[in-house]
Amino acid sequence: MSAIANDVESRNLQSDPSTKKKFNLFVGASVGPEVEDRWASLDMIARRYPHQVGKEVAKGINAGRIEFADKHLSMFPQDLTYGYYSLHKKHGDPTKPLDWAIVEATAITPEGHIVPGASIGATPEILQSASKIIIEVNTRIPNLEGLHDINHSFLPPHRQPYLITHPSDRIGGTAISVDPDRVVAIIESHQPDNTGSNAPENDESRMIAKHLIQFLESEVIEGRLPKSLLPLQSGIGNVANSIIGGLAEGPFDNVQFFDSGKLNFATATSIRFSPDRFDQFYKNWASYKDRLLLRSQQVANSPEIIRRLGVIAMNTPLEVDIYGHANSTNALGSRMLNGLGGSADFLRNAKLSIMHTPSTRPSKNDPTGISCIVPFASHVDQTEHDLDIIVTEQGLADLRGLSPRERAKVIIEKCAHPDYKDILREYYDRALDECMKRGAGHEPHMLRNAFKFHTSFLEHGHMKVQSWD
Amino acid sequence: MSAIANDVESRNLQSDPSTKKKFNLFVGASVGPEVEDRWASLDMIARRYPHQVGKEVAKGINAGRIEFADKHLSMFPQDLTYGYYSLHKKHGDPTKPLDWAIVEATAITPEGHIVPGASIGATPEILQSASKIIIEVNTRIPNLEGLHDINHSFLPPHRQPYLITHPSDRIGGTAISVDPDRVVAIIESHQPDNTGSNAPENDESRMIAKHLIQFLESEVIEGRLPKSLLPLQSGIGNVANSIIGGLAEGPFDNVQFFDSGKLNFATATSIRFSPDRFDQFYKNWASYKDRLLLRSQQVANSPEIIRRLGVIAMNTPLEVDIYGHANSTNALGSRMLNGLGGSADFLRNAKLSIMHTPSTRPSKNDPTGISCIVPFASHVDQTEHDLDIIVTEQGLADLRGLSPRERAKVIIEKCAHPDYKDILREYYDRALDECMKRGAGHEPHMLRNAFKFHTSFLEHGHMKVQSWD
Repeated sequence: MSAIANDVESRNLQSDPSTKKKFNLFVGASVGPEVEDRWASLDMIARRYPHQVGKEVAKGINAGRIEFADKHLSMFPQDLTYGYYSLHKKHGDPTKPLDWAIVEATAITPEGHIVPGASIGATPEILQSASKIIIEVNTRIPNLEGLHDINHSFLPPHRQPYLITHPSDRIGGTAISVDPDRVVAIIESHQPDNTGSNAPENDESRMIAKHLIQFLESEVIEGRLPKSLLPLQSGIGNVANSIIGGLAEGPFDNVQFFDSGKLNFATATSIRFSPDRFDQFYKNWASYKDRLLLRSQQVANSPEIIRRLGVIAMNTPLEVDIYGHANSTNALGSRMLNGLGGSADFLRNAKLSIMHTPSTRPSKNDPTGISCIVPFASHVDQTEHDLDIIVTEQGLADLRGLSPRERAKVIIEKCAHPDYKDILREYYDRALDECMKRGAGHEPHMLRNAFKFHTSFLEHGHMKVQSWD
Repeated sequence: MSAIANDVESRNLQSDPSTKKKFNLFVGASVGPEVEDRWASLDMIARRYPHQVGKEVAKGINAGRIEFADKHLSMFPQDLTYGYYSLHKKHGDPTKPLDWAIVEATAITPEGHIVPGASIGATPEILQSASKIIIEVNTRIPNLEGLHDINHSFLPPHRQPYLITHPSDRIGGTAISVDPDRVVAIIESHQPDNTGSNAPENDESRMIAKHLIQFLESEVIEGRLPKSLLPLQSGIGNVANSIIGGLAEGPFDNVQFFDSGKLNFATATSIRFSPDRFDQFYKNWASYKDRLLLRSQQVANSPEIIRRLGVIAMNTPLEVDIYGHANSTNALGSRMLNGLGGSADFLRNAKLSIMHTPSTRPSKNDPTGISCIVPFASHVDQTEHDLDIIVTEQGLADLRGLSPRERAKVIIEKCAHPDYKDILREYYDRALDECMKRGAGHEPHMLRNAFKFHTSFLEHGHMKVQSWD
């Protein structure tokens, strides 16, 4: 991909509409920002699915130059094979959704199968969907054969169950078979992975982790969770790090981490793929093989397996509303950050669906200018039917079995920042009063004021609403 | 349940706080309104999960007398067995989430197992969760042994795959085993099912069905669906009836209907359980046995099976917004109608997720006073990541592979009523313009005006917004 960008740049193709190149770019989830941001800067991306991390890409999406839609990571590969992203394809092979696939390999087996690198993502389905395939063999990384568990994807009505009842069960092969007639090039690369470093833990992340660990302990005591817990899925970030640390110190045995499509953790104790650890991991990867397994995202994120295993899912929203709807993607309802990823695959299907967030974030003019607890989420990715637990550094709200009216009280009391508690209480009380008067008090709202936190922020740079009148 | 209501009424227990009886009432989905509405009228319901159909129950919920939460039908039974609805249970057996279960049987086998009636719902999990069990043998209905396929429910980490690859596959037993020590009474009843009659087809429902059938035909031609389609799931109502009629006349072979927890259809051609057909069905049920199968809702609605089979799901929302978020439950964001039911189980996991609705509904003062296409859904149950197709009598919007900006244009042009097209276009154009200016144009909104359709309705009785200023 860098070579294509180099070519486009060196020949100055983008300056003239007659030579300008724009591509529809599909990646399992995200690709190294050094590649994708460069494509976006050169305005080479027309359409992009289903997730991205890169400032220039996000800028292009929010400026209307890139048509982007985020999609559940479990669904993107199947929808690709269904032809849902090539409904209007007019050029190239009409039976193949993609014209080109570029995939990384750490080895090609004697049978011509591809052994992937540290991520599988949607590679099986992308290979299945492409007219022409370029294989990039990364010789910096050792042959990782044996690390992966790879399934081919079938179309309904020919699908079979995923016979996985434990995270470590293997149901597939260790390499991806590929039609050699479609392979047009095999090239060598020697690039390291570019993953960026982690946000450091802080007091807030440690407080959130403390509330969560206490909650998990009490679930074990009440008999609702085994002492080894259940497979954990976690987003990336400083809270995740604090939780891992807390779990290691807590009274739990043999806790297992569940891969969320991108490999972040393999066990609860240590393996983390930050850049400084990658080389070390590659050197010793064979010794991790029994504690580590990579699957394609269609399988790893499948509702089938998440629900069967009873996963404990933990993710961070941008904001949560007082009834338990969460926004994972769009700031102020409109500005795309990275996309949905696998959050909804996990939160809908987990046995325990947990969202954790600081109660506030700083704005330009106010250290608590943004409340992460709002009256009405300005974009809804996770519904009230999908969240069990909300945690901030202020406390933990257990929403299980509660009606919306009960949830609002618990979320405000346990999770909201003191700067916003009274404002939120007044919203709820007034909404309840107004809705009761017209016999509509199940989930009380004042729709004219529902986004006043957000419009206040747009006008004043903070969400501290002065009056609900 | 009627007997309990009779007792409460005859002894006038509700008039005095010291004798007043209030119950937490859990039903798989809904129960006959003649029973439930009477309990609600007598203010006997403290808490109610996970779905209901009854005017008096809805009134109690919206007046704040009944704590109600709707939940995915696939999840309610498992959450019950997890103890999520009895976290704070202080009386009775602490190891059993329910004190009492009342279940209908059409027979009790020589082994003491229960053969259910025309619905299974959450019966296996309710029996598993109750301290004391009352079995009501309905002698009006024949012994339906052989009609059901019943699984017991296990807790993670001990869950197994559901080995179903075709709707007719059987993986369970024909009766529910029950601990005889917990059975405290077996009583006889002779009540008929009370299902209510169907809304009749009309021009609108026939137009919606026509658009849908045309779409399914073109999917077959394009090779994205087999000629027998894929298993169909449909909500109840006049549009569903029109679709069935259309399918029977269309060029499809051997279409299969998928049970959505409540049995409505068994094949695409005729069997429907309206009151006038129930007795006829019971008389001849054995001849339907091979075309009909009842499962528990945890299995029938499981994401695992819906996704594997590649179901085509069709449901009706209250409203859909221009980006493809749908409200299935709360009028004007706050007034609960019936609850979520299995809609999100199916729409999230189907191969084709379809919502159909008239483009408008009449208000008191305007025959097109309510637009079902709105700028921002006043409650979100289905997200933009879950819907493929939206249909109204005006036309069909195919959202697959589209970005939010593209979706808005297609939904407005294809689905909105002519009375609202210009109003919606202006909302979108202005929102786009404002959001582009601040580099936030992924999903353009004017948050201050996002609910102006709804606030206009509250003020003027119609949604015809005069100005977006």
